[in-house]
Amino acid sequence: MTANHAPVNLNLKSESEIRTIARMTESALRYARAQRDAYLDDFLKYLAIPSVSAQPEHKSDVLHAANWLAKHLSDIGLDARTMETGGNPVVYGEWLQKPGAPTVLIYGHYDVQPAEPFDLWHTPPFEPQIRNGAIYARGSDDNKGQHLAHIKALESLLRADGTLPVNVKVIIEGEEEVGGPNLPAFVRKHADMLACDCVMVSDGSLFDITRPTITYGLRGLVSMEVTVRALARDVHSGHFGGNVQNPAVALAQIIAGLKDAQGRVAVPGFYEGVRPLSPEERAEIALVPWGPAEVMRESGALQAFGDPDFTPNERKGARPTLEINGMWSGYTGPGSKTIIPAEAHCKITCRLVPYMDPQRIIDAVQAHIRNIAPPGIEISFKDAHGTIASLIDRSSPLFQAAAAAAETTYGNAPYYELEGGSIPVVADFIAVLQKPVILLGFGLPDDAIHSPNEKYDIQCFEKGIEASVRFLTRLA
Amino acid sequence: MTANHAPVNLNLKSESEIRTIARMTESALRYARAQRDAYLDDFLKYLAIPSVSAQPEHKSDVLHAANWLAKHLSDIGLDARTMETGGNPVVYGEWLQKPGAPTVLIYGHYDVQPAEPFDLWHTPPFEPQIRNGAIYARGSDDNKGQHLAHIKALESLLRADGTLPVNVKVIIEGEEEVGGPNLPAFVRKHADMLACDCVMVSDGSLFDITRPTITYGLRGLVSMEVTVRALARDVHSGHFGGNVQNPAVALAQIIAGLKDAQGRVAVPGFYEGVRPLSPEERAEIALVPWGPAEVMRESGALQAFGDPDFTPNERKGARPTLEINGMWSGYTGPGSKTIIPAEAHCKITCRLVPYMDPQRIIDAVQAHIRNIAPPGIEISFKDAHGTIASLIDRSSPLFQAAAAAAETTYGNAPYYELEGGSIPVVADFIAVLQKPVILLGFGLPDDAIHSPNEKYDIQCFEKGIEASVRFLTRLA
Repeated sequence: MTANHAPVNLNLKSESEIRTIARMTESALRYARAQRDAYLDDFLKYLAIPSVSAQPEHKSDVLHAANWLAKHLSDIGLDARTMETGGNPVVYGEWLQKPGAPTVLIYGHYDVQPAEPFDLWHTPPFEPQIRNGAIYARGSDDNKGQHLAHIKALESLLRADGTLPVNVKVIIEGEEEVGGPNLPAFVRKHADMLACDCVMVSDGSLFDITRPTITYGLRGLVSMEVTVRALARDVHSGHFGGNVQNPAVALAQIIAGLKDAQGRVAVPGFYEGVRPLSPEERAEIALVPWGPAEVMRESGALQAFGDPDFTPNERKGARPTLEINGMWSGYTGPGSKTIIPAEAHCKITCRLVPYMDPQRIIDAVQAHIRNIAPPGIEISFKDAHGTIASLIDRSSPLFQAAAAAAETTYGNAPYYELEGGSIPVVADFIAVLQKPVILLGFGLPDDAIHSPNEKYDIQCFEKGIEASVRFLTRLA
Repeated sequence: MTANHAPVNLNLKSESEIRTIARMTESALRYARAQRDAYLDDFLKYLAIPSVSAQPEHKSDVLHAANWLAKHLSDIGLDARTMETGGNPVVYGEWLQKPGAPTVLIYGHYDVQPAEPFDLWHTPPFEPQIRNGAIYARGSDDNKGQHLAHIKALESLLRADGTLPVNVKVIIEGEEEVGGPNLPAFVRKHADMLACDCVMVSDGSLFDITRPTITYGLRGLVSMEVTVRALARDVHSGHFGGNVQNPAVALAQIIAGLKDAQGRVAVPGFYEGVRPLSPEERAEIALVPWGPAEVMRESGALQAFGDPDFTPNERKGARPTLEINGMWSGYTGPGSKTIIPAEAHCKITCRLVPYMDPQRIIDAVQAHIRNIAPPGIEISFKDAHGTIASLIDRSSPLFQAAAAAAETTYGNAPYYELEGGSIPVVADFIAVLQKPVILLGFGLPDDAIHSPNEKYDIQCFEKGIEASVRFLTRLA
C-alpha cells in the first residue's frame, strides 16, 4: 500500500539543499516565537474542553474537542475532517502537496483521563492556569500539549513558507484513555489513507529538558485468568481440615513454581528465542539514568529486585516478565472465617519482548501450570490472549532525522530506551503500515499525567514545536 | 470450687440400688411415652419462636424464647430464671435436692441460625411442620430439640417419681450462633453456681439412629492474618515489571513453604509434643465409618487428600492442621488490570490437638514465615490469637454412665470420636469447672443444620429423652 511513495534517502543532500533546510527551519521557528501568545491561547482553549472519554456525561465535550481540532487543522491549511469509528470520532487531516517527498503520519489523542478527585486540584482541571512557567490542566501533557506542538509546527511552516517540506497526515483519536477499542479496525479499514513512510508518536517524556529520549521498543502482553478448584463449596475447616486439598494452598504452590528466587520465570522455554542484546546495545541502554534508586523512588519499592544478570533498564525493556496482577480465594472480610475455600483464582500477565510469540507463551505457561499442579485440584483458564512486542527499525533515515532534530533542539544526543509498557496502537501501525514508528516524547517525568494537577511546561510546548519543525525540514 | 461435691463412685451398687434405678427409669420412660403429644406440642411452641441471635430485628423473639424456656423449667419444678450477660440472657435452672449425689450441668443454646434463604424452605422455618416422622423448623436439631430432650427427661423423672436421681443444673445460652461472645465471662463469674461433676452437651449427631457417637476430643484453633507489602502503591506492570518484588508472588512462595506436597505442615516444631495415639486408640477410632468416600461425598472434594501416615478419622481429630481460609491481592474484578499489587494478604487458621500451646504455634508459624520470606518485602501479622484443644477424661464414671446409657438406648456401643472442629465453651467449662464434658449428640447427619429445611426426627427427640433418663438414673 506504500508503493506509491518514493524511497527516502536523506543522506545525499547538496549544499543548496542544506541551506534551504536551514532557511525554512529558521523562518518557521521565528514565526513560532512571534506567535507565542496566540499559540498559547489556542492551547488554553483546547484544554478548556473537558474531553473525558471514560465518562458518558462528557460525550458532547468529546465531540466538541474533535470538531474544534478538525476546524483548527483546516484553518492551518490541512484538508481535515472528523471520521466515524465504532466510538468517538477520529480527527484526520492531510497535506499532500509534495509528490515524491516522504510522508509523515502524526498520531495523538484528543481525549483525556477523568480529573477526579477534583478536591486535590489547586485550580480546576478544565480552567487551565499558567503558574511558574507551566500550564496546569487535565490533558496538558497527556496528550493535547504534545500533539498540538506538532500541529503548531505545521502552522509555523505553512505560515512562514507557504508550504511544508514533506507530505503530512495527522490522525488524532478520541479513545486512547479507554483502551482505544475502535482504532485497530479503523487503521485496517483506512490503511491506504494512512499509508506513510513513518509514524511520529509524541505521548511520553524526556528525562529532563536537556535530554531527549527515543523509545525504540515496547513490550507485548499476554493475559490469562487461572482458576483452581478443589471442592464443591467452601467447607468447615474443622470438619475437613487435614483431609482435603486447600485450593488457596495449591494455587500458592503453583504460583511459587512460576518464578525462581531471583524473580526469573521458571516456565520451561519461556526465554526461548528472546532477542539478545549486543554489547553495543547494552552499553547504549546503560546511558539511560534509571537504576535501582530510580526504581525504588518511582514505585515505592522496599528494594529493587530482579534478574541479577541484567540491569534495571534491560529488565524493563529487553526481558520478558510474568506477574500476578490479582489473586483471590475464600474469605477476605474482617475477622476470621474457618473455612477451606472451594476455589482460588489469579490473574497473570506476561510482558513479552521481541521475538516472543504470544500463543506459544500462553501454551507454555498453561502447560507448566498443569505440570506442577499438586493433586486434588481441577485447573481452568479463561481470557487468555496476547499481543506481540514492537521493535522499531532504527536504521530508517526518518528515525535518524528525528534523532538529529531532537539532539539539536534539546542540546544533547537522545537516550535510546526500550520501554516496559505496551502501546497497542504502535503494534497496529507497524503491522498494517509496515513502517517505523518514532516515539519521541515532549513531556517531563513530573508532569503528573493521570493525576491531579497535571501540568505541561511552556518550555516543553515550545521545544516540542521546535523539534517537530527540525524533524520535518530535515526530511525535505 | 467443687469441694462441696461428694466423689462419685458408680461401681459400688447394691442389688436393691440397681432395682431402684430400673424402676425409676421405667416409670419415667412410661410417663414420657404417655405424654408424647404434649411434649411434641411444647416442642412445636418453642420452635415457633424465631430466636435468631444474628439478626437485631429478632431481639424481642430472642428474649421471648429465653422467658418461655425459664418459665418452662419452673413449671417442671426447677428453680429457674433468666440471667443477664453482656448480651442475650442465659437461662439457668437448678434442682439440688439430693445432697451427696452427683451434680450434672446440662448445656444447650436457645438461639438459632438465620433461616435465609426463605424461598428454599418447603414450609416456613418458624411454622414447624411434621412430615414423614420429622419436625421441619429452624432450630429443630440445632439446638432446641436436643436440649429440650434433656428437659423433658427431667420433667418425666420429676412427674413420675417426684424427684430426680441426682442434682441437676441447666444452662441454656442465647448467643451460640454468634460465637458466644459473653459466655466465657459468665462461666467465670458464676463458677460457684455452675460447679458440678460433669457437663452434658448435646449439640451434635449420631452416625445413624442405632449408632451413638461420643466425642471425647475437640481441636483448638489459632488464627492470624498476614500482610506482605512490597510497594508503596499498586504500580504499572509494564514500567516496573522485572524490577520489583511482586507481593502476590512473595506471599504464594511463603504459603507454598508452609506445607509439603502431602499436606503436612512444614513449620519447624509444629508437631512437637502432639499427643500420640496408642495402637488401641487407633483401632477404636478406626471403627468410625468415615473414610475417603465420606470425605469426598460430604465436602465435594475432587479427591481425599492428607498425610498418608494417618487415616481420615485420625487426620480429622488427632492431627493439627494449617489452612488458608482466605487470600487476596491486587485486582480481582472482571477483565485484566496490568498492575503489580502493593500488598498481598492471607488469613491462616491452625487446628490444634492436645497438647499444643496456641502461643507457641503462633510464634513458630510467624518465625517460619519470616524465615522463608523472599527478599524485598515487609511482613506484618494481625489478629493472632488461639485456644487450646479439649480432651475429655474418659476414665470418669460419669462419662462411662453416659456411654452405657447411650448403648442401651440406641442398641449399639458408641463410636468414640475425636472431632475436628472447636466448641469454645467446652474448653471454658473444662478450664473453669475442671470436670469432664460429655459430648453426646442426639441429631442425625442429614438434619440440615444451618441450612434450609432443617429437621429433627421425632424418633431422635424420643431417643434423646430416653438416653437422658437412662444417664441420670445410672448416676443415682
